[in-house]
Amino acid sequence: MKHSFKSDYSELCHPRILSALSAAATGQFEGYCDDIYSLGAAAIIRDVFKAPNADVHFVSGGTQANLVIISSILRPHEAVIAPHAGHIFVHEAGAIEATGHKICTREGLNGKLSVTDIRSVVEEHCDEHMVKPRLVYLSLSTECGTVYTKAELSEISEYCRKNGLYIHLDGARLGAGINSTFCDLTYPDLTNLVDIFYIGGTKTGALFGEAIVICNDDLKEDFRFLMKQRGALLAKGAVIGLQFEALFETCRQYICLYDELSLHANKMAKHLAEGIKALGYEFFSPAETNIIIPLLPPKIVEQLCKLYDFHVWSNLGDMVAIRLVTSWATTQDVIEDFLEDLKAIP
Amino acid sequence: MKHSFKSDYSELCHPRILSALSAAATGQFEGYCDDIYSLGAAAIIRDVFKAPNADVHFVSGGTQANLVIISSILRPHEAVIAPHAGHIFVHEAGAIEATGHKICTREGLNGKLSVTDIRSVVEEHCDEHMVKPRLVYLSLSTECGTVYTKAELSEISEYCRKNGLYIHLDGARLGAGINSTFCDLTYPDLTNLVDIFYIGGTKTGALFGEAIVICNDDLKEDFRFLMKQRGALLAKGAVIGLQFEALFETCRQYICLYDELSLHANKMAKHLAEGIKALGYEFFSPAETNIIIPLLPPKIVEQLCKLYDFHVWSNLGDMVAIRLVTSWATTQDVIEDFLEDLKAIP
Amino acid sequence: MKHSFKSDYSELCHPRILSALSAAATGQFEGYCDDIYSLGAAAIIRDVFKAPNADVHFVSGGTQANLVIISSILRPHEAVIAPHAGHIFVHEAGAIEATGHKICTREGLNGKLSVTDIRSVVEEHCDEHMVKPRLVYLSLSTECGTVYTKAELSEISEYCRKNGLYIHLDGARLGAGINSTFCDLTYPDLTNLVDIFYIGGTKTGALFGEAIVICNDDLKEDFRFLMKQRGALLAKGAVIGLQFEALFETCRQYICLYDELSLHANKMAKHLAEGIKALGYEFFSPAETNIIIPLLPPKIVEQLCKLYDFHVWSNLGDMVAIRLVTSWATTQDVIEDFLEDLKAIP
Amino acid sequence: MKHSFKSDYSELCHPRILSALSAAATGQFEGYCDDIYSLGAAAIIRDVFKAPNADVHFVSGGTQANLVIISSILRPHEAVIAPHAGHIFVHEAGAIEATGHKICTREGLNGKLSVTDIRSVVEEHCDEHMVKPRLVYLSLSTECGTVYTKAELSEISEYCRKNGLYIHLDGARLGAGINSTFCDLTYPDLTNLVDIFYIGGTKTGALFGEAIVICNDDLKEDFRFLMKQRGALLAKGAVIGLQFEALFETCRQYICLYDELSLHANKMAKHLAEGIKALGYEFFSPAETNIIIPLLPPKIVEQLCKLYDFHVWSNLGDMVAIRLVTSWATTQDVIEDFLEDLKAIP
Repeated sequence: MKHSFKSDYSELCHPRILSALSAAATGQFEGYCDDIYSLGAAAIIRDVFKAPNADVHFVSGGTQANLVIISSILRPHEAVIAPHAGHIFVHEAGAIEATGHKICTREGLNGKLSVTDIRSVVEEHCDEHMVKPRLVYLSLSTECGTVYTKAELSEISEYCRKNGLYIHLDGARLGAGINSTFCDLTYPDLTNLVDIFYIGGTKTGALFGEAIVICNDDLKEDFRFLMKQRGALLAKGAVIGLQFEALFETCRQYICLYDELSLHANKMAKHLAEGIKALGYEFFSPAETNIIIPLLPPKIVEQLCKLYDFHVWSNLGDMVAIRLVTSWATTQDVIEDFLEDLKAIP
Repeated sequence: MKHSFKSDYSELCHPRILSALSAAATGQFEGYCDDIYSLGAAAIIRDVFKAPNADVHFVSGGTQANLVIISSILRPHEAVIAPHAGHIFVHEAGAIEATGHKICTREGLNGKLSVTDIRSVVEEHCDEHMVKPRLVYLSLSTECGTVYTKAELSEISEYCRKNGLYIHLDGARLGAGINSTFCDLTYPDLTNLVDIFYIGGTKTGALFGEAIVICNDDLKEDFRFLMKQRGALLAKGAVIGLQFEALFETCRQYICLYDELSLHANKMAKHLAEGIKALGYEFFSPAETNIIIPLLPPKIVEQLCKLYDFHVWSNLGDMVAIRLVTSWATTQDVIEDFLEDLKAIP
Repeated sequence: MKHSFKSDYSELCHPRILSALSAAATGQFEGYCDDIYSLGAAAIIRDVFKAPNADVHFVSGGTQANLVIISSILRPHEAVIAPHAGHIFVHEAGAIEATGHKICTREGLNGKLSVTDIRSVVEEHCDEHMVKPRLVYLSLSTECGTVYTKAELSEISEYCRKNGLYIHLDGARLGAGINSTFCDLTYPDLTNLVDIFYIGGTKTGALFGEAIVICNDDLKEDFRFLMKQRGALLAKGAVIGLQFEALFETCRQYICLYDELSLHANKMAKHLAEGIKALGYEFFSPAETNIIIPLLPPKIVEQLCKLYDFHVWSNLGDMVAIRLVTSWATTQDVIEDFLEDLKAIP
Repeated sequence: MKHSFKSDYSELCHPRILSALSAAATGQFEGYCDDIYSLGAAAIIRDVFKAPNADVHFVSGGTQANLVIISSILRPHEAVIAPHAGHIFVHEAGAIEATGHKICTREGLNGKLSVTDIRSVVEEHCDEHMVKPRLVYLSLSTECGTVYTKAELSEISEYCRKNGLYIHLDGARLGAGINSTFCDLTYPDLTNLVDIFYIGGTKTGALFGEAIVICNDDLKEDFRFLMKQRGALLAKGAVIGLQFEALFETCRQYICLYDELSLHANKMAKHLAEGIKALGYEFFSPAETNIIIPLLPPKIVEQLCKLYDFHVWSNLGDMVAIRLVTSWATTQDVIEDFLEDLKAIP
């Protein structure tokens, strides 16, 4: 294979992450995220997100972040509202249900929920013979590579606050989302518009690790108990903390590593999308971040997959939607090669 | 503070772990432990443990390993048997109960269960008004720093096989256990005597990560589903795999890094224990590995904790049992200093 | 209100149930379904269903039966396949998810699943990032009042056996289903075609209680533990056992009370459906048992609900689908009255 | 066997329960405890317990009541404190753990917890590596047949309120407890001293059924959702409601059936205990209600169990503690016979 476009976690980590590890290699530190690196990273994140009162916690992966967050918030009969494409609904092996909660879905559009979707779930659930929707799950960027605009997220936020619903935003690819040219949201906007979210490190140049940010005071109590109980409180939490320091530390003045890597991935994806569009192909959903989903004829896909690794998103019969993901490590050359190869397939 | 004896996870990682990371920093790899590092590490582990048919999986921490393993094995009404000091009973925030299972305990001796203990639980649980014990949880080394002998583990193993009980061995500190001069068990002995166990990396020089080894075919099916569902299947599983390669790779011929680091920690602890004993103090439980629990007068402890960090294990009134843990990074100088300071306290 | 058509559990119980209670009112009996009534009822059920090796258990309600059965069968990552209208999906307040399992749904037709539906779920779930479908949930009669034919159920059964899926049939209204003129299935057919099912007493003249029948040996082990754990093992299980004796006892030779009451309910519903059809109205789904779902103009429904109690099944805009349920206690007079009143609404 | 002393649920029900059923046998009623019987019974119970604001719910059994209550109150990391003899700890097949919660136990005395016991659990659980105790489980009468005095319960109540702990009182045998001559508590005292409790019908003459009473407003929200989710919301809830009406209805002025039956059972037990004492035997725990636990020589027990059914509570070697339970239906003759037979054993 010439290259894998399967994901943005196919490369180990950015060199500055390795440097941060080396720099911390001597000396002792406290366990369970009470170390100076984790405390430092939390302070930087509070600063960047203009969330001076937020609680910040570090966990090892996205499914873990989602299941700890959701099971911490809900009582047994309460449910999550999510779009069909939501990661918690299709790709977490029933992790949320395993903590006892139902996910109520709506089809959504391009991986996004609207207020209309959310309202229809709420209105359908009218008595104690059904679960009680209590939390809305959104992804930024979405599993289809799209983003919410500030207007869209504000409308959802307003509806949820009026109707007693919390919002959890899955930021596995938060950098790609916020740094998309199609997204007018800023980091501090999230602090104002959602109740809890996590910032994905794994898919943006870290070895692993996600930072959970709790904005709403109601959701803060005893969160570390929940982390411990689900196996998410790492003994050497410092390993995650120091990576987030490296990713966000210059953010106060200039652009931080996290944004730099996200912008690069998005730029490579944009280049790729434009090249594919130039060849006359359409897209399954708008190409807005580092995930793009072009529609190609089956015969082309058959040839292409001999040269490149990628996931088939959906087989529509006459066309096949394939998912191409770029990362902080994807080079311009790889994109050019791919476009050349695509053009050359008869 | 001059030094912390609180744990063996107070230092980042051994330099050879960092080197292994640097060496893998370029290029792409498969996700979810299907990469060459994880596959390589699994092969080495099968070799070291003489377990050619074992399944090997990598997860980020010990509580996670325990909860994935136990919830994978048991039906809803089945229970675990553990000693009172067992990590799953006291220090995992109800992680096992959160997956739906009761832990049936016996006091045990020095953190260890005997066949008599196990049998008494089995005989007490006689009908469907009670849970059904199905799995025995042992730790090597134990939470009190002690070890099982081959005779002890063989007797337990024989009883369990005759009585339809599985054995899960928590090896958070497996290196310290197997490399203890009080332990005549070898790695391959575990393959023969228990059904499933995990090898702790976090406490033996790794950044983080544990390797689960499934010896019994009955327990292998669909294990990756369980890992994914509990948030334990890391996207960049390679990060753990390459650490275990580094820890075990030379093991086929000479001593591997894992044993080297374990032996060092044990040696430092032995030196510390002998020094304390020479000052006339007794121990709460036999000092056999890198955890020792001396009994000191309250006034001494009061002074000591101004100089050193450590956990109080148990306050017995006239004496206080304190837990001192050495690691792969503990130096001879630190031990000497501590003993000097202890001697000097009036 | 002149009458309630909301359900078939609006009347206490058939007089012969009360007689059976009176007859058992003196003397002592064993607890937890080990009494002579429960054992007797189990024997009769085995006889009626030609299932000499089946295990029979008694529980107090349908949601309880479903949750005990499903959580007994599945490992944590395994899921149920159900139609959208399935009771477990919409009307059990997340009972199945609360035991940790996802329900994978397909729209189905008239409350029924086809092999095509089931296959599409199976094929979609291809790896450990998703749950593993393991059990198919069917209802007879369905929540829409329809039935499976022998050909339909046989085809599903064959597919499931070839593909490692178990079948659980929710028989909350089994009597209405089997005794429908549209259903060519017999009680013994169920024994051959499904793995586990329950016979609903609550909706067919009993005070309360359902009988779970386990045909497949694989699903029998330790079932009483699961019942106890979920609060479903009644201390005075005899109270349910004696009701099922009364419902099924003459079945060996003549028609039993259970069939008699089911036939009556179906007959009343048929009469009602024919009367409504004669007035020119259509139906949401075929009227095959004691639940019928006519489509009426909103203005008619508005008037009708001043006279009668019933549930609105679905509001389709120009027409409203209302659910009318008859029971063992519904009289011919009530049906005539309803039809008169419907005709009279301007 | 001449008689069974195994339990107080060995007889079907008191004749007045059957009469109440017969009286309700015609007509229709609302489902799910919204019927006039359940509403009426709730009103009577509020009156008897002087709890005008309490919520009252009806469920089919004690294990079900306990698991619905406890899982409704606790967040995932929160735990219950119970005595070793507590029904939820030993005889509910892990029902509480199956809802995800750990039970922290203390030995207690005669089945009772003291403030000292509770405090020691609270003080031991100091950080997020352990569960967080949040609810105290007490039984009245206890599993050993003993009772709390008003002073004892008041002291526990005061401690719990000061320390953020709720109290759930398991009243499977509430009648026997409150009507014990050793118990100076009244029904209204419970309303003041505990947060939630249930009144056992199954063991006091009902066919089945328990009434949950929620005194503390904090614990009321969405309780019916929890009931439904655990399979505890009976379609014909009226069946339980009308039984509780029969049990408590005259209570406003004279003695109600519930007290009458409890007093009778206690009286028979007292007679039995005095007879046994007169023969020179001691008791395992004080004989205070309808459960008594005499200590007899093994040889006597061996003979006795050929004539009578009873459970062995504990085998102490030289003596065997056997549990004898009387009920509302136990006659004076049965007691005399038993005492004669016991005396006659050589």
